[in-house]
Amino acid sequence: MSPDHPSSPGPSSGRRLRLGMVGGGQGAFIGAVHRIAARLDDRYELVAGALSSDPERARASGAELFLAPDRCYDDFRAMAVAEAARPDGIDAVAIVTPNHLHFPAAKAFLEAGIHVICDKPMVNTAAEAEELAALVRERGLVFVLTHNYSGYPMIRQARAMVEAGMLGRLRVVQVEYAQDWLATAVEESGQKQAAWRTDPARSGIAGCVGDIGTHAFHLAEFVTGLRCTALAADLGTFVPGRRLDDNAHILLRFGSGARGMLWASQVCPGTTNGLRLRVFGEAGGLDWQQEQPNELRFTPLGEPPRTLLRNGPGSLPAASGISRLPAGHPEGYLEGFAQIYRDAADLIDARLDGRQTPAVPLPTVEDGLRGVRFIHAAVESSGRDAAWVDMAGH
Amino acid sequence: MSPDHPSSPGPSSGRRLRLGMVGGGQGAFIGAVHRIAARLDDRYELVAGALSSDPERARASGAELFLAPDRCYDDFRAMAVAEAARPDGIDAVAIVTPNHLHFPAAKAFLEAGIHVICDKPMVNTAAEAEELAALVRERGLVFVLTHNYSGYPMIRQARAMVEAGMLGRLRVVQVEYAQDWLATAVEESGQKQAAWRTDPARSGIAGCVGDIGTHAFHLAEFVTGLRCTALAADLGTFVPGRRLDDNAHILLRFGSGARGMLWASQVCPGTTNGLRLRVFGEAGGLDWQQEQPNELRFTPLGEPPRTLLRNGPGSLPAASGISRLPAGHPEGYLEGFAQIYRDAADLIDARLDGRQTPAVPLPTVEDGLRGVRFIHAAVESSGRDAAWVDMAGH
Amino acid sequence: MSPDHPSSPGPSSGRRLRLGMVGGGQGAFIGAVHRIAARLDDRYELVAGALSSDPERARASGAELFLAPDRCYDDFRAMAVAEAARPDGIDAVAIVTPNHLHFPAAKAFLEAGIHVICDKPMVNTAAEAEELAALVRERGLVFVLTHNYSGYPMIRQARAMVEAGMLGRLRVVQVEYAQDWLATAVEESGQKQAAWRTDPARSGIAGCVGDIGTHAFHLAEFVTGLRCTALAADLGTFVPGRRLDDNAHILLRFGSGARGMLWASQVCPGTTNGLRLRVFGEAGGLDWQQEQPNELRFTPLGEPPRTLLRNGPGSLPAASGISRLPAGHPEGYLEGFAQIYRDAADLIDARLDGRQTPAVPLPTVEDGLRGVRFIHAAVESSGRDAAWVDMAGH
Amino acid sequence: MSPDHPSSPGPSSGRRLRLGMVGGGQGAFIGAVHRIAARLDDRYELVAGALSSDPERARASGAELFLAPDRCYDDFRAMAVAEAARPDGIDAVAIVTPNHLHFPAAKAFLEAGIHVICDKPMVNTAAEAEELAALVRERGLVFVLTHNYSGYPMIRQARAMVEAGMLGRLRVVQVEYAQDWLATAVEESGQKQAAWRTDPARSGIAGCVGDIGTHAFHLAEFVTGLRCTALAADLGTFVPGRRLDDNAHILLRFGSGARGMLWASQVCPGTTNGLRLRVFGEAGGLDWQQEQPNELRFTPLGEPPRTLLRNGPGSLPAASGISRLPAGHPEGYLEGFAQIYRDAADLIDARLDGRQTPAVPLPTVEDGLRGVRFIHAAVESSGRDAAWVDMAGH
Repeated sequence: MSPDHPSSPGPSSGRRLRLGMVGGGQGAFIGAVHRIAARLDDRYELVAGALSSDPERARASGAELFLAPDRCYDDFRAMAVAEAARPDGIDAVAIVTPNHLHFPAAKAFLEAGIHVICDKPMVNTAAEAEELAALVRERGLVFVLTHNYSGYPMIRQARAMVEAGMLGRLRVVQVEYAQDWLATAVEESGQKQAAWRTDPARSGIAGCVGDIGTHAFHLAEFVTGLRCTALAADLGTFVPGRRLDDNAHILLRFGSGARGMLWASQVCPGTTNGLRLRVFGEAGGLDWQQEQPNELRFTPLGEPPRTLLRNGPGSLPAASGISRLPAGHPEGYLEGFAQIYRDAADLIDARLDGRQTPAVPLPTVEDGLRGVRFIHAAVESSGRDAAWVDMAGH
Repeated sequence: MSPDHPSSPGPSSGRRLRLGMVGGGQGAFIGAVHRIAARLDDRYELVAGALSSDPERARASGAELFLAPDRCYDDFRAMAVAEAARPDGIDAVAIVTPNHLHFPAAKAFLEAGIHVICDKPMVNTAAEAEELAALVRERGLVFVLTHNYSGYPMIRQARAMVEAGMLGRLRVVQVEYAQDWLATAVEESGQKQAAWRTDPARSGIAGCVGDIGTHAFHLAEFVTGLRCTALAADLGTFVPGRRLDDNAHILLRFGSGARGMLWASQVCPGTTNGLRLRVFGEAGGLDWQQEQPNELRFTPLGEPPRTLLRNGPGSLPAASGISRLPAGHPEGYLEGFAQIYRDAADLIDARLDGRQTPAVPLPTVEDGLRGVRFIHAAVESSGRDAAWVDMAGH
Repeated sequence: MSPDHPSSPGPSSGRRLRLGMVGGGQGAFIGAVHRIAARLDDRYELVAGALSSDPERARASGAELFLAPDRCYDDFRAMAVAEAARPDGIDAVAIVTPNHLHFPAAKAFLEAGIHVICDKPMVNTAAEAEELAALVRERGLVFVLTHNYSGYPMIRQARAMVEAGMLGRLRVVQVEYAQDWLATAVEESGQKQAAWRTDPARSGIAGCVGDIGTHAFHLAEFVTGLRCTALAADLGTFVPGRRLDDNAHILLRFGSGARGMLWASQVCPGTTNGLRLRVFGEAGGLDWQQEQPNELRFTPLGEPPRTLLRNGPGSLPAASGISRLPAGHPEGYLEGFAQIYRDAADLIDARLDGRQTPAVPLPTVEDGLRGVRFIHAAVESSGRDAAWVDMAGH
Repeated sequence: MSPDHPSSPGPSSGRRLRLGMVGGGQGAFIGAVHRIAARLDDRYELVAGALSSDPERARASGAELFLAPDRCYDDFRAMAVAEAARPDGIDAVAIVTPNHLHFPAAKAFLEAGIHVICDKPMVNTAAEAEELAALVRERGLVFVLTHNYSGYPMIRQARAMVEAGMLGRLRVVQVEYAQDWLATAVEESGQKQAAWRTDPARSGIAGCVGDIGTHAFHLAEFVTGLRCTALAADLGTFVPGRRLDDNAHILLRFGSGARGMLWASQVCPGTTNGLRLRVFGEAGGLDWQQEQPNELRFTPLGEPPRTLLRNGPGSLPAASGISRLPAGHPEGYLEGFAQIYRDAADLIDARLDGRQTPAVPLPTVEDGLRGVRFIHAAVESSGRDAAWVDMAGH
């Protein structure tokens, strides 16, 4: 331990938020990640869940998580109503189901006046996204989308550096997200995660583009502050029999004149969770790779490249202020995910107390809408032989 | 998320252990780390603490952590007695004070029949270490030393590979642990962590050798399964006015005929938390670096080097079985630390239930004794101009 | 020196070829590189040159290179005629002028019956390229294009691995070539190299696409053995006042169904000579980066990634057979360039002796034609808003 | 090619030096390296050789290298006398035999008034080293020892940075040189290079320490400018039956108060030619690895780490002035080796012209003496159980 840059995570509000969860029962994966993320900074207590639509599984899953039996629901709509009615009802709900259930679940809890933390991609259509956005505005509720990669300190650092003009006017954005876990038809051999992600009924109109392309797209806009105005996409499906895209090559244009490329793939052997963002401006460049998240390469024009370490020399408050550990003590995926929950807790706390909500750079319902538009534009462009498609039209 | 190797952390015993903490009040650093580590897998609930010997600070610190007022103690001996008497008393205590208090605190809780999780280095003298060891044996209690780096999955992988003979007979062990946070006399400018670590009254006879050299030494023995029989040490103090060593160069000999070098430093600019272990046998080599903990380089003789990823291809159960996330989703320092707590929970659970305790590779009171011997041998050797000193004699 | 894989470069034919050079006088850059490349393996002796069209500079440059005064020409056509007439005339000529002179110079020497080694891009138009190709065929001469990156041993290794089926059927090709030396308008401040490269009169219709995009394109086809059938290009010029493209985003489709992306840029701060090729097939992937050319990452599906070292374990004869040094002793850019010259010497030697020419994977006049088509297709596509353009049509 | 930092290697003196070679006949390894190094910058012409003591092999080897038959000798003493007597006799000789012949060969040529470039380690005893040193002084000849790693531009950069005070007062020197090519008893299976290196009659009293430990030791002194005053060595032999050390662990003390460690090994699987030097001062650190020689990590205290690229931003004249290529175009082992030859040519040129010799940082006969003392001190210390041995005494 080299505690030269100590930092103090943990509760600051004097309360733990009461959290419910929809999805995430036994055998689910991302649900467990959300629970660790919520727990890590001690800002939430999980007290209710519609962990499964199967009553028996819902009960058993809840018991494992120390939920009271009367708060183990098998129907998320019933849960929303019941929890809203309890004096000790949940403050917020985490929605961690397959994609097609995000919309009805989010709607039910928003209508019940409960803050929502929702997995990505948000919903399947722009209409749904806009309906949720309207609900959020009307009810004055917090809605957070778990584009978890935006919770990494060095991504916050990158965003702050761009914002501060350290790169100058931006020119080129290169973003890629490559995996290999769908390199063969694992969906045919009972891999549950693969099955729903490659099934249009549960995943929507896109496969790889929706599952990970949206992360890449969000990260590019999140860090650069630019808005993509048009894209040209060449989607492909390499694994025979697969019903959705598993590889995407996309050209991007941004409002400012910057240009970019986005590559997303789930069929490239030797890539694991290879999300990488490079941003180049007139005055400098940045390079970040998710698999080494504690480092950010900064290359001011005409100077030697610098390796910025999380919470090390050169860290801006945007990064060091949210670090739980000194430099050299690696933080990882869970800590980045937890940051989304910690920031959400700050927002919800403030809302509960009637205080002004702090400015935290969280993915919102508007980002969810951008993601839906991105998916639809990519699919439309690819259907029209990679013609440019206007993002505004989606 | 590429959930091809899902894993399911979380409680398995149907209970959360009741945890107390000694030290770790407001402004302390390592206490917060222990609390996150304990919380991460939901196996513990923090319910009591002697967080500070200052009553006011003890109370305030406890309140922040949601402790009941009557379980905020300002004296660890009183706490041990009181908690042992409560029907809902703590199952285990975490000791996270400066080094000189480890011994009296551990002794108090062991005598009260409470399981102990203790920060390193364990105690200041071999006599103290042996007294604790005897107590642990007599009382049949669990005693875990938080050599947290041994909780990293790829360190467990390395140990399992050596054990399985994948490296053949071992020849050379190179271990280093370099930092730069004490490169200047920060202890003179009020840096609290630096102050106690460079103060013989609180830190013991060694500085750098005790603080991080013990980690390096433990890791080398932990992974190789070898026992160091003799060492020759050249300790130095580079920062003027500093009262303890801040750089250590040590030659190692092992019982098996293997030889090694250990370098520990806290004064080398540009090193951060640079713990690295390389082990070479007749048939292959391993290389692991703490700052990239999800990777392990494996170099079988005459074959291309391989990069093993945590929970990726080539992962043994020792590593994949304790991974919380698929490969490519980085785990970090906190997850490694949490593994110590998770394994300790398995041990304590079994003890509470009267079940046979599982075989978990946790640092024990015996490792604490090895660490104390290592410190004393190094200091003695250095005092005798780097003469070889027998580890058995300490 | 760890001479476990010795190798023996050097002359094998019993002769040194007599080499002439066009371009490359004082102050030129690439000429000096060609000369070292020719000299490295002692297969050539430089004996004549039209190093400059300025007589004084031609003479002075020649004197520095130990050329006899009567073989220092100021006109390449005169040189071709004169050398062809000498009994000790040159066997081969290296053409290292700015692009617009490649065609007339190559034509002059081919017509004089002299073998040609020519810098890239070969010529400006497909018509010129076809005229040269016809000449080469008619005269039975050797024509080698210095796509020097194809001379790196690990690129030869990659090609051999693909050819041997170690990657299975190919899916995705990602190639990029990023630099930053044109990030500002250095052409306006008298940088000679920048001046001609950004001048349509000397560089042709493309800037970055022609200068380095052609290298990337050639490398992708060279390693994969695939032929690009169509591309969609989004070329941009970021530096105000510049007359040619300085950034290119290109989608690629290959005859086999594989798809790719090509990024070339000369305006991205922090990139230096960042040529990188990644190839993914059904069974594995490869990753090579020019700035670390002695390594090739090989990732067989479902196995740990392997780092292949030049001339180390796993090296195929295609790589180890051309290595001058054991693994761990880095070879670089000059050695890769020299390989082109060494292979060319083998070809020319055989031709001079009337032996069958060996099968060496050298870039030929046909590759030069591919490069010209690539440039024209990219410029046309970009002019049509990134519409797909058929490579066959160019 | 990104020719933003062009550089112009090549002859500057208007002459090519006439070079002879002793050793390096067919099948030899290091001889070929010396020849490429001599040829690369066109400053030498190889015109004579005693390439083998076997007359037939000497002639055949010479013919392959285009030597005139009357200048192919089978006896180096005869060659020294004959060449000294010729009007066109050699200016310098390169000695590339096994170690035990360095002394008589160097002596013969020095006595004949011929400049010497000699492979390392220089000779076997301090007496021999002193005899050579005296001869060099008396005759006013150039004597260069090919500690080739000191010819790498980034090593020259490191030395210049230390000299300029950029690291402040030095504290710690960590140097290591690890290989694996002697991990098994290859000397028993006819590997010629292994055979003489493990044979005391040809290699001297040390194996690994002499072969590569001397390189590491020289590099440490070369870069830091410090002089090692004492060492404590633990040499080992891991391969059964081997007659010389194959692994060395050495503690170092320097006159200035700095301390260091040196590790050399030839038996560690997965290391290839792993020479690495780290130097830490009060104000900053440097890290260089031979296998990535174009990079130098510079870590000023309290600032982000910087990666200096050869000939890139931050390059001092000591490095950029000797670069043959722009940054991003890798140079390697041969170019570093060639730098020794280029610098030697500058020295010899000046001596031939009666000009003042330029200040080039070349390893000299004095460094050769240091190397011999290092070997003897290490062997003596190890024989005395790693007692400290004074370097001055050897």
